[in-house]
Amino acid sequence: MNDVAAAAGVALKTVSRVVNDEPGVNPATAEKVRGAIEALGFRRNDGARTLRRGHTSSIGVIVRDLADPFYSTLTRAVEEVALTHGFLVFTGSCDESASRQRELALAFCARRVDGIIIVPVGDDQRYLEPEIHAGVAAVFVDRPATNIDADSVLVDNVGGVRKGIEHLLARGHRRIGYIGDAPEIFTAGERVRGYRETLTAAGHLIDPSLIAMASPSRQGIRAALERMLLSSPSPATALFTGNSRITVTVLRELAELEASGQGLERRPALVSFDDFDLADLLTPGVTVIAQDPARIGRTAAELLFRRMEGGNLSPVRRELPTRLIPRGSGEALP
Amino acid sequence: MNDVAAAAGVALKTVSRVVNDEPGVNPATAEKVRGAIEALGFRRNDGARTLRRGHTSSIGVIVRDLADPFYSTLTRAVEEVALTHGFLVFTGSCDESASRQRELALAFCARRVDGIIIVPVGDDQRYLEPEIHAGVAAVFVDRPATNIDADSVLVDNVGGVRKGIEHLLARGHRRIGYIGDAPEIFTAGERVRGYRETLTAAGHLIDPSLIAMASPSRQGIRAALERMLLSSPSPATALFTGNSRITVTVLRELAELEASGQGLERRPALVSFDDFDLADLLTPGVTVIAQDPARIGRTAAELLFRRMEGGNLSPVRRELPTRLIPRGSGEALP
Repeated sequence: MNDVAAAAGVALKTVSRVVNDEPGVNPATAEKVRGAIEALGFRRNDGARTLRRGHTSSIGVIVRDLADPFYSTLTRAVEEVALTHGFLVFTGSCDESASRQRELALAFCARRVDGIIIVPVGDDQRYLEPEIHAGVAAVFVDRPATNIDADSVLVDNVGGVRKGIEHLLARGHRRIGYIGDAPEIFTAGERVRGYRETLTAAGHLIDPSLIAMASPSRQGIRAALERMLLSSPSPATALFTGNSRITVTVLRELAELEASGQGLERRPALVSFDDFDLADLLTPGVTVIAQDPARIGRTAAELLFRRMEGGNLSPVRRELPTRLIPRGSGEALP
Repeated sequence: MNDVAAAAGVALKTVSRVVNDEPGVNPATAEKVRGAIEALGFRRNDGARTLRRGHTSSIGVIVRDLADPFYSTLTRAVEEVALTHGFLVFTGSCDESASRQRELALAFCARRVDGIIIVPVGDDQRYLEPEIHAGVAAVFVDRPATNIDADSVLVDNVGGVRKGIEHLLARGHRRIGYIGDAPEIFTAGERVRGYRETLTAAGHLIDPSLIAMASPSRQGIRAALERMLLSSPSPATALFTGNSRITVTVLRELAELEASGQGLERRPALVSFDDFDLADLLTPGVTVIAQDPARIGRTAAELLFRRMEGGNLSPVRRELPTRLIPRGSGEALP
C-alpha cells in the first residue's frame, strides 16, 4: 500500500479509503489510486486484518451430503444470509461419519471461522465445547446436538408423520408399512415414533413386520417391499417413507416389481416425508409431508448471526412446521 | 502450547508432534498430552502458520447456484478431491451476475485461497489476472474464461446435441423445436449451434420460429410451446431442451397444456440435455444427453491441484464426452 501511495502521489490513508470503499475521496484521486493499484498488481489481503481483529468473517457449514438437494438448498440459503453480512462460507460433507465431521469442524475452527452450522452426526458433540467457549457460535440443524447446550433448528418430525398417517387412516388404510432410515439418526427415530404413536392413539396395534429401518439401499428396500407387499398373509395397502431418498428408491423398486410380474396387483398408497423435485410430475403425483430446507437454512443462519453479535443468550430450539401436499399417491383407497 | 507442555511435563516438540499427528510419541505420553489439552481447552490455530507459509490449504468454488443438483454434485466432487489433499472448500453462488462473481472471487483471493474453480459469468475475467500472477491457481468449468489464459473443463456440447438431434431425425422427425437458455451463456450458445449444424448437415433448413432462447421462465417456455406446438401451421413433432431446468419446466407445461384441452393432441418426442433425478420414473421416461457433473468437478479439482504443485504448465482445455440415454420420450415417432 505504501508503493501504491507513492505511485499515486497520495497519502497512505487515501489508499486505504479507496481500497475499503470509504467516503471522503474525490473521484479523480480515487481513479489515480485505482490506476496505481492496477499498474502495481496490488492484491487485497484479509489475513493480517483477520489476525488483528481476531475474526475472519467466515462461517462453516457441515451437512450430510452437499449433492443431496435437501442439503444443497439449505446451504444455499445459509450462503444468502451470510452474503448480506459480508461473510464467506466454508462447506463440508461428512456423510454419516462422526469422525469426518469432527475433523471438518475442528479444521474450520482452526481457520477461525466465526460460526458453524452443523447437521450433527454421532452421539457426542462435546469436542466443540472448547471452541464454543472460545467464542465460535454454533447452531445445529435438522438434529439436536448431544451433550452440549447450543441453538438448534429442527422440524416437527412427529407432527409431520402424524399428519401423513392420519391422512392414510382416514382413507381406510389399516395395514400401513413404514420404511425409514437408520434408527440411530435422530430424524429417523423421531419419524418412526410419530408412526407408532399415531397408530397407537388411533387404537391400532403395531405390527413389527410392517416396519423397516435401515440405511437406504436398493436391496434392503426391495426386501422390505417384498415382505410387506407380497409374502405377508395380510399385505400392506399403504406405505409411509421416511425421507425423499427412500421414497425415490421405493418408487423405482415398485416400478420394477410391477414390471416383473411377481404378483403385485395394485400399487399401495404412498406418503413421503420430504418433498422433492418432480414429485408432482410422476403418475400418480406423490403426496408428501414437505419440509422447507431453505427456511431451515435461513433460520439457522439468522440464529447464528444473532449469537455472533454477542450477549448472553440462552440456547434456543426452533421447531419448524411441515405441510401435507396431496398429489394422488396418498389418496388411493385400500 | 507451552502451557500444555508444562502441564503434561513434556517438551514443546512432543506437544507439537501429538497435535500434528506425527509419529515418534509413545502412546502413554500422547495420552498425557491429550489430557492436558482437554483440561486447558487448547485450540488449534492455523492462522499464524498460514501467514508464515503463505498459503491456506483452501480453495474456492463459485457456481451458478449451489441449490441446483448439477452444481451441487460438481461441488461435492471437488470437495472429495480437496479432502484427500487436506484442503478446505469455500463455496459461493452468483446466479448469472458477473459483478457478484467478481466480488466473490476477489473475496476468496483476499482470504488467500490457493486455488479457485469458477463457472465463469460475463465476458471478461481479466480481473483475475493479478491473482493468477500472484500464484492463485484457477480452473474454469462448464464454460471457458474470456480474455484470460487458464485451464478449463468443458463438455462436448455440440457433439452432445448432435447425438440427440440425429436420434430424432432417425425416427423421422423433421420439425424439431429447440428450447434453450439465454444465448449469452456459453453452453447455451454452443448447444444451439449443435442443433443448427446438425440440421444443416442433414440437409434441412433452419426455421427460426422453432428456436426459443431465453433465461428460463414458466411464461416464456409456455409461450414457446404454444407457438411451436399449437399455433404453428406445421407444428413441431419433437423438442430438444437445452438443460434440465428447462426440461422440467417443459414437462410441467406440457402436462398443463394437455389438461387444459387446448388442442395438444399428442405429446411431442423429447430429448433433454442433462440428466436429472427421476427422469427414468416419469411416463414416458425422459431420453437425455447426460453430462457427468461429478466427473467435471473431479477433473477440475485434479487440474487445480496439479497446477498448485507448480511448474510451468501451459493451459489445458479438457472436453468431456456426453452420453445418450434412451428412455422413451426420445423414441416416439412423429
